[in-house]
Amino acid sequence: LGLPKCWDYRSEPLRPDLLLAAAYVLDAQYNRNVPFETSPQAIRLYYFYNHWTTQVATYFFICVDLALALFEEPALFPLPFLATSIAEILCLTAFFGRLIHFAKITPQMVFWKDTKNICIMVTIVLTLIDLIIYGSLESINVRSVRWSRALRPVFLINFPESRQIRRAFRSLRNTLPDILYVFLLFMFSMLMFSLMALKLFGDRGLKTAEGSPYFENILDIAFELYVLVTTANSPDIMMPAYDFNWWYSLYFIIYIIINTYIFMSVFLAVVYNNYRKHLKNEICKLAYLKRHKMTAAFNVLKVKVGTEFVVEEAQWRQLAQVVAPDMSSAHLELLLRISDEGQKGHVDKMNFLRLADLLNIQVVTINIKRHPLEAWMPRVYQSSASLLVQKMVRHRIFVWVFDVIILINAIFITLDEKNPLISYAEWLFLSLYIIEILLKLYTYEPRAYFERKQFWNWFDTLIIVAALVATVANATIQSGQCHQLSASPLTSHLPFGLVCVTLFCPRFRVIVTTLINIGPAMLTFGGLVFVVYYVFAIVGMEVFHGKVRFFDPNFTAPDALVCGNPALQRSAFARGRYCKNNFNDLASAFTVLTELTVVWFLNFLLLADGFALVTHQAAKLYFILFHIVVVILIVNIFIAFVLEAFFVAYSLEKSEVETAIEKKIQELGVGIQEEELQDGKLTDHVDTKDRGLHGDDGDDKRKALKGLYCRIASKKYRTVDALLQRMFESEIAPEDEGPSLDEILNFSPSDICPKNPNFKNSA
Amino acid sequence: LGLPKCWDYRSEPLRPDLLLAAAYVLDAQYNRNVPFETSPQAIRLYYFYNHWTTQVATYFFICVDLALALFEEPALFPLPFLATSIAEILCLTAFFGRLIHFAKITPQMVFWKDTKNICIMVTIVLTLIDLIIYGSLESINVRSVRWSRALRPVFLINFPESRQIRRAFRSLRNTLPDILYVFLLFMFSMLMFSLMALKLFGDRGLKTAEGSPYFENILDIAFELYVLVTTANSPDIMMPAYDFNWWYSLYFIIYIIINTYIFMSVFLAVVYNNYRKHLKNEICKLAYLKRHKMTAAFNVLKVKVGTEFVVEEAQWRQLAQVVAPDMSSAHLELLLRISDEGQKGHVDKMNFLRLADLLNIQVVTINIKRHPLEAWMPRVYQSSASLLVQKMVRHRIFVWVFDVIILINAIFITLDEKNPLISYAEWLFLSLYIIEILLKLYTYEPRAYFERKQFWNWFDTLIIVAALVATVANATIQSGQCHQLSASPLTSHLPFGLVCVTLFCPRFRVIVTTLINIGPAMLTFGGLVFVVYYVFAIVGMEVFHGKVRFFDPNFTAPDALVCGNPALQRSAFARGRYCKNNFNDLASAFTVLTELTVVWFLNFLLLADGFALVTHQAAKLYFILFHIVVVILIVNIFIAFVLEAFFVAYSLEKSEVETAIEKKIQELGVGIQEEELQDGKLTDHVDTKDRGLHGDDGDDKRKALKGLYCRIASKKYRTVDALLQRMFESEIAPEDEGPSLDEILNFSPSDICPKNPNFKNSA
Repeated sequence: LGLPKCWDYRSEPLRPDLLLAAAYVLDAQYNRNVPFETSPQAIRLYYFYNHWTTQVATYFFICVDLALALFEEPALFPLPFLATSIAEILCLTAFFGRLIHFAKITPQMVFWKDTKNICIMVTIVLTLIDLIIYGSLESINVRSVRWSRALRPVFLINFPESRQIRRAFRSLRNTLPDILYVFLLFMFSMLMFSLMALKLFGDRGLKTAEGSPYFENILDIAFELYVLVTTANSPDIMMPAYDFNWWYSLYFIIYIIINTYIFMSVFLAVVYNNYRKHLKNEICKLAYLKRHKMTAAFNVLKVKVGTEFVVEEAQWRQLAQVVAPDMSSAHLELLLRISDEGQKGHVDKMNFLRLADLLNIQVVTINIKRHPLEAWMPRVYQSSASLLVQKMVRHRIFVWVFDVIILINAIFITLDEKNPLISYAEWLFLSLYIIEILLKLYTYEPRAYFERKQFWNWFDTLIIVAALVATVANATIQSGQCHQLSASPLTSHLPFGLVCVTLFCPRFRVIVTTLINIGPAMLTFGGLVFVVYYVFAIVGMEVFHGKVRFFDPNFTAPDALVCGNPALQRSAFARGRYCKNNFNDLASAFTVLTELTVVWFLNFLLLADGFALVTHQAAKLYFILFHIVVVILIVNIFIAFVLEAFFVAYSLEKSEVETAIEKKIQELGVGIQEEELQDGKLTDHVDTKDRGLHGDDGDDKRKALKGLYCRIASKKYRTVDALLQRMFESEIAPEDEGPSLDEILNFSPSDICPKNPNFKNSA
Repeated sequence: LGLPKCWDYRSEPLRPDLLLAAAYVLDAQYNRNVPFETSPQAIRLYYFYNHWTTQVATYFFICVDLALALFEEPALFPLPFLATSIAEILCLTAFFGRLIHFAKITPQMVFWKDTKNICIMVTIVLTLIDLIIYGSLESINVRSVRWSRALRPVFLINFPESRQIRRAFRSLRNTLPDILYVFLLFMFSMLMFSLMALKLFGDRGLKTAEGSPYFENILDIAFELYVLVTTANSPDIMMPAYDFNWWYSLYFIIYIIINTYIFMSVFLAVVYNNYRKHLKNEICKLAYLKRHKMTAAFNVLKVKVGTEFVVEEAQWRQLAQVVAPDMSSAHLELLLRISDEGQKGHVDKMNFLRLADLLNIQVVTINIKRHPLEAWMPRVYQSSASLLVQKMVRHRIFVWVFDVIILINAIFITLDEKNPLISYAEWLFLSLYIIEILLKLYTYEPRAYFERKQFWNWFDTLIIVAALVATVANATIQSGQCHQLSASPLTSHLPFGLVCVTLFCPRFRVIVTTLINIGPAMLTFGGLVFVVYYVFAIVGMEVFHGKVRFFDPNFTAPDALVCGNPALQRSAFARGRYCKNNFNDLASAFTVLTELTVVWFLNFLLLADGFALVTHQAAKLYFILFHIVVVILIVNIFIAFVLEAFFVAYSLEKSEVETAIEKKIQELGVGIQEEELQDGKLTDHVDTKDRGLHGDDGDDKRKALKGLYCRIASKKYRTVDALLQRMFESEIAPEDEGPSLDEILNFSPSDICPKNPNFKNSA
């Protein structure tokens, strides 16, 4: 039950030392960094801990726990307190069980030194205390605050599986001390300007457009000036002073230049600098840890042959099969050939250390058969006319011609659709695109063209088929005079056409590819933002719920006009019909917070003022805090992340980074670059390679390897982390074992990769 | 007449080769990079060209030329066309003269290859043509367009003296190709969203808040979505769709995330990447050019002594006196001592090459006398009580105590001034600050404390004296019951107090110092922004002048309500009383453009719509173009500049960059670090140094050198350029002469410093 499928189907019993080595390799491959005991019992537990079923179960309980806020007062779907509390206790039990499981496979000292585990335990205890207090007060009908709900994201962050979100949080936390000084200076500058404003405008008896006193209270001024940094109240706030004297606008211009332009740039500089520093340290740490684990695995399996320690071929095979049970035997043979250079029947240390990287390299079966048409009617396909067509399609001008066609199509798209000429032109463009794809399929091998990784080819074809279907459907519907259906915008092919236009053009593919590479990491930011939103939403729901109510627009009671709260009489909040923006349940709270983040500028002041009216002036602090966290920290980290991704992409444009393992593969002549697959040079290439293999190998080996080639993932399809790790690994010497494990784990965040000026400065 | 003052007062006649060498050294020192001929006549012209009087005259004519826009139709101060055209022709003559002067001192080939000169000539010719056409049409009373006025900033940019502005422009120009692709992609994404909007909302018959059709025309949609990127119309534009169906807000949220957050980050990434690349190339180029010029100067003066070429001491002295005529003889002696290590009577090549750097190093006369009080009453000053006071003042806790006092003062400042207790507290704080300064003056030598470079000491004292004067004045006025005067905010000392608070605190001084270092370069951006504004203002004045008029608010004619233009009836422009925002003269145009830049968000839409109403829809293009140039290019370059400045500051925090010359000075023991001057360790230090000098030198030399020390400018007070150049120079070997002059000048911008991975990546 507890063992992963990898050795369930093997007949021979596996030795525990092999399992131990396999665990080390899996650690190295997936960067799990879990130190653990060596008894067979512990290894069994370790595999069970890392099995996908237990991980999915943990995430399920985390989701349930977080979703409870939907059912608790103030609820979107109310459930009795008993039901939610039982669900919560179940979740807590699951978390506790997972923690005990983790403790069993971890040395005690390591377990108790890890703040993650302490955090989870403290949160479990606090949640239980809160549940008991709230439950007993509830039973005597006293309503209290469920404060522990704001702690729930702790489980999401602190379980070892959510490494990416934790890293984003660590990056946030590491940036805090540095940003604090800048923030204090920023506050001082704001306060100084507030005092100046008080002195300049306070005694003049100026009135705002709404007739309230203008700049007479230092706290109000500070709040208005803080909002001015976001330029949310930009012309309004300076108008009374501007009307009084033109020269006072200089005060506001200087304020905005200093506090909006300069200070926001300084914030970005500080955040980016920290982000870059800590990213590099994490990468160095991961690279060194990987090497350590592979060395540990080697030490478990090594035997002495001659003067050096090696791992025997049989052991190596078994290990590879445990670690990657789905690998084909031909694939295994190829990897062994790469690892055991001289075919001596054993793998030496340096080659063994590369196993984790080797397993990450994709191996593809190259079809060395000719184009199906060539096999079917070789004379026609090889005729001079056919060859001319193929040469034409492979030529650059072919691509350019279709770029021009796409541009013309783009211009047509913006014209009026009702014109019959244009509608015919659409059919023309569509047929041109179809001809293009058919020509490409004629020239390139179809299975290579629609290979799993040929994302763009798939995409192009899909778009054109979709456009074809949509156009035909549209035409059918229109000829049937069925205008009702044709009005539905989703069946229109025009937006598809434009997607097509944008993504067809190879000029843009580099930028688009970089943007797509950023995609997965955006999910990390999604997690980060979700955690921040969740905490703010829970707090907001406790503080503001029920203060503002939304009435159906058709409901004309006087209450509806003031959002059900008389304090909002004559406020801009009620006038702007903002009643829908409330904290009465989790969904509404998330909506408000999203609005504040994305369409920040006008909402902030209205919302802050509105909620200050229904509760207390201090409510403004909630909104300011949210702004500081989201705009100054998270948005800047996001920008830093995008900047870093582009800088790495730019620096790779110039220099080729090749790891030792790639050099090795190229030397053996079994590597294929991504680009070659696209360019149709493949067949020749494979031919050459094939002949090479034929020359110096036995016939059996040749059969096993024939058609199998390592694909070195193109640099275009890599994430920033992978690229940086690759850069770093290409710089540490193969025999360098780095600092000791204790040193790596106890390093302070700033001094882990100090020796390598090139890598350190490069990105 | 034509010769600079440097050799006017020398009795001995100077040889032309010395003057030539001096010209090379001056070039190297001030980065003039003017190649020139070697005849005495040419040298004479060269010195005259670089004399301050001719430079000031050129700038004067540039200012006059630019200021002419104030006096020409539409004018702030109207002058007849004859007057302005005569002034303009005078300016053009001056520019032409300056150009001819430059041609005389430059080899013909170099002169004609320089686009700067071609630009100036073309502009002069175009301006003359325009003047003639306009003048002749004016004489027959036909009004035409003075289009050449928009070309006037060319003179400001292209004269060799405005190197900084030109560099900023070059940086802008180099960024353009890279940014173009991103911009096209951005436009495509916007167009795609526009089409989607057309399909989603176009047929629904939705109305905006003002009742006009909503999203029914592709061009209108594109404009609105472009404005949405600036979030200027953020909640308004989505409200009709949001009211129709809640889910449509997702469209706008996705749009803002993609086009505002991601694309703006990508713009920043592209601009920053280019800025960094070109900055480093310029620095490398400057460093290599400097070395080349110094080598040229050496080759002019070299004589063979033994096996190597050297420059004799007499020649070296004369050269130094020509280059830096104000240098004292003691200073000269010190520099010679540094250059002529073994005191062999000549300077070798490697030391000669450092002359330009040596001349840039500050030399200070250190007063090795004791504190005046010590000289006056040594027993009292050296008594144990006095020593205790001095130790106390030098202790860190002394600084901390005053930090706390400043913080308490800050809290008091925000309290009510009318309270007598607080008014007394102010006196208390003031006396505490005065005591602090007196204690410091007692401990540190007053002349060292108020030394020219001790900016912060000067500042502190000035602030406190100002606060003292203001408080005393305030008290006197208040005791005299003269409330009228006391209301004036400028006599109040409170703002001074807060400046004081902010700048006193040493924690912030590092950030503040970096910000101050950025200051001078801000002027470059000022120049850049001025040029862009000027061109846009001239174009705007031609297109929009007189379309919108401002009437005095008390003037109640119906015209006043629509800014004198019936087309503005019921427009938001007129309702918002924006009539003052017009292009009727240069000052108004500059005001409008400043508003658009700084308080961008609400004005943009109103202004663009308003001016489109009074002229043509195409007027919106003017405003969009301005936004692209200012927000996408200039603001991003500004942010890139601030980021770079902070990154260089951060990277210097960790590593000490020392040029060869500084090592040399430290070896000789005549260097003083900036920090030592502030810490009061100075006297001991100087004592040690003094004894050192005494030991190994003759008495004469000692006298000349006594009290003279090189100050190595602290890294804190350097600009980014200087720091980067220093980093690069510390990395090229002293004997490396770099590529040849032709290679340097003809290098493409991207391949000038490719060999040095460390420098290349570091900043």
